[in-house]
Amino acid sequence: MTASAPLPPDYVHGYSPYETRRLGDQADTLATLLHSDTAYPAGSKVLEVGCGVGAQTVHLVTTSPEAHFTAVDVSASSLTQARARVTAHAPGAHVTWTQANLFELPFDDAEFDHVFVCFVLEHLAAPRQALTALRRVLRPGGSLTVIEGDHGSAFFHPDSAYARAAIDCQIHLQADGGGNALIGRQLHPLLTESGYEDVTVHPRTVYADRSRPTLVNGFTRNTFIAMIESIREDALAAGLMTPSDWDRGITDLRRTAADDGTFHYTFFKAVAVNPSPEPPDRPDRFKR
Amino acid sequence: MTASAPLPPDYVHGYSPYETRRLGDQADTLATLLHSDTAYPAGSKVLEVGCGVGAQTVHLVTTSPEAHFTAVDVSASSLTQARARVTAHAPGAHVTWTQANLFELPFDDAEFDHVFVCFVLEHLAAPRQALTALRRVLRPGGSLTVIEGDHGSAFFHPDSAYARAAIDCQIHLQADGGGNALIGRQLHPLLTESGYEDVTVHPRTVYADRSRPTLVNGFTRNTFIAMIESIREDALAAGLMTPSDWDRGITDLRRTAADDGTFHYTFFKAVAVNPSPEPPDRPDRFKR
Repeated sequence: MTASAPLPPDYVHGYSPYETRRLGDQADTLATLLHSDTAYPAGSKVLEVGCGVGAQTVHLVTTSPEAHFTAVDVSASSLTQARARVTAHAPGAHVTWTQANLFELPFDDAEFDHVFVCFVLEHLAAPRQALTALRRVLRPGGSLTVIEGDHGSAFFHPDSAYARAAIDCQIHLQADGGGNALIGRQLHPLLTESGYEDVTVHPRTVYADRSRPTLVNGFTRNTFIAMIESIREDALAAGLMTPSDWDRGITDLRRTAADDGTFHYTFFKAVAVNPSPEPPDRPDRFKR
Repeated sequence: MTASAPLPPDYVHGYSPYETRRLGDQADTLATLLHSDTAYPAGSKVLEVGCGVGAQTVHLVTTSPEAHFTAVDVSASSLTQARARVTAHAPGAHVTWTQANLFELPFDDAEFDHVFVCFVLEHLAAPRQALTALRRVLRPGGSLTVIEGDHGSAFFHPDSAYARAAIDCQIHLQADGGGNALIGRQLHPLLTESGYEDVTVHPRTVYADRSRPTLVNGFTRNTFIAMIESIREDALAAGLMTPSDWDRGITDLRRTAADDGTFHYTFFKAVAVNPSPEPPDRPDRFKR
């Protein structure tokens, strides 16, 4: 999921004064929810793995303007877009762009103070091995931050079996592709089993109702429902739903963004520490 | 759901130093999560509707020691237990105990400054009518606070279709009894349609993993799973699951409280204002 879908400039159009009254409460847009508490010290070396088109990079350079980022992606074209996006957004940002596979990172051992991974593990067949591989380039005592969604966390009013089935199509297709759309709930065991310490995971819940029109448009409609709608052809080609059931599912999902609808989704943010290597066995003379 | 299941005094037994290390982070128990931001001014008159055995009343009198509470329940025996519990917990608390049906409250119009309702609407066949009825005894400008759970918000790792089916039994049985175990997500439209204004709803998420042993025991095991386990006979008698599938569901639910498991549940807390009555029509002489 891309959590940075730009909010349409006209997002309050059509809303009554009743709804626009509380716009001051809307500062908690998705980027704030996910990124506002991530701040790296001046001069620290931070690796962003799987930066894609820079959707999260722009937030990182904003909240940590004096850190030195290295943004890695396997796709050259994504890196080109990411560089353009960050340059337009923050021309003075310190970002080095590197094309690489995260399992073959061209960096020294312990080269980075911190590692940041957002919406990447959900696409990997071997997330645990990826997390373990990242420990090599992260200095002992350095932090790892991971943010992932969990499509099984979506629930809404009015409830609808068709809408849930449409979301399940996304979960199935992502699993068929080797990924895992339910990975958010697994972050704590994943990081622990990958050798990290002091693992803390906090849910970051998006809840939208008519009193939060920015989230209804920016998240329910333009991020989540748009994402589900985009897999229509794949879902139907795979025979996961009939076209009429699919269309009813989308209609019912859109219904949750109406004035009397509500929508809930949970992201998970994990922070952990790369432990120091195990000390070598004591020499024999110290053994009892 | 009773959110005040007392934490067993030995809740950290059996936990490794790794897990007990973060106990300082565990202050956010369920009562804190749900009630810490509810505080009524000294001398204000507060009605708690459906106090049951006083599970929430003890928190209300703690966070608002100088408010004057009237606690109502339809059951005399519940009221007796509630009085004993509150007296033991806070002997000086200002609570008047009244046996009454919430649709026939023996109070004057606008008698209360605030109304508090927790885990009550989920059991009512007519929650909207109940909310509308409460407006009579709440002064214009006074606040209504509503807290409800939503069993459809439960998800966990490892995921299990059997565990989900066991939870669905509770949802079905509650619906058969005229209630609604999915009411949390509906609070915003319910309060709006009942005539309240300035309705704000915030999710209150319980997330438990091995780093939060208090919640694993106090919530996952001793509140949520214990609640599901308690309906075994009813679920089997209704033919909702076979005994072996049920037992597997419970086993799988318990698995989510193991060291590599996680559990997520969302409560919803709504606060709204009782508007002033509509002004009468202007006299004819002012009409144009």
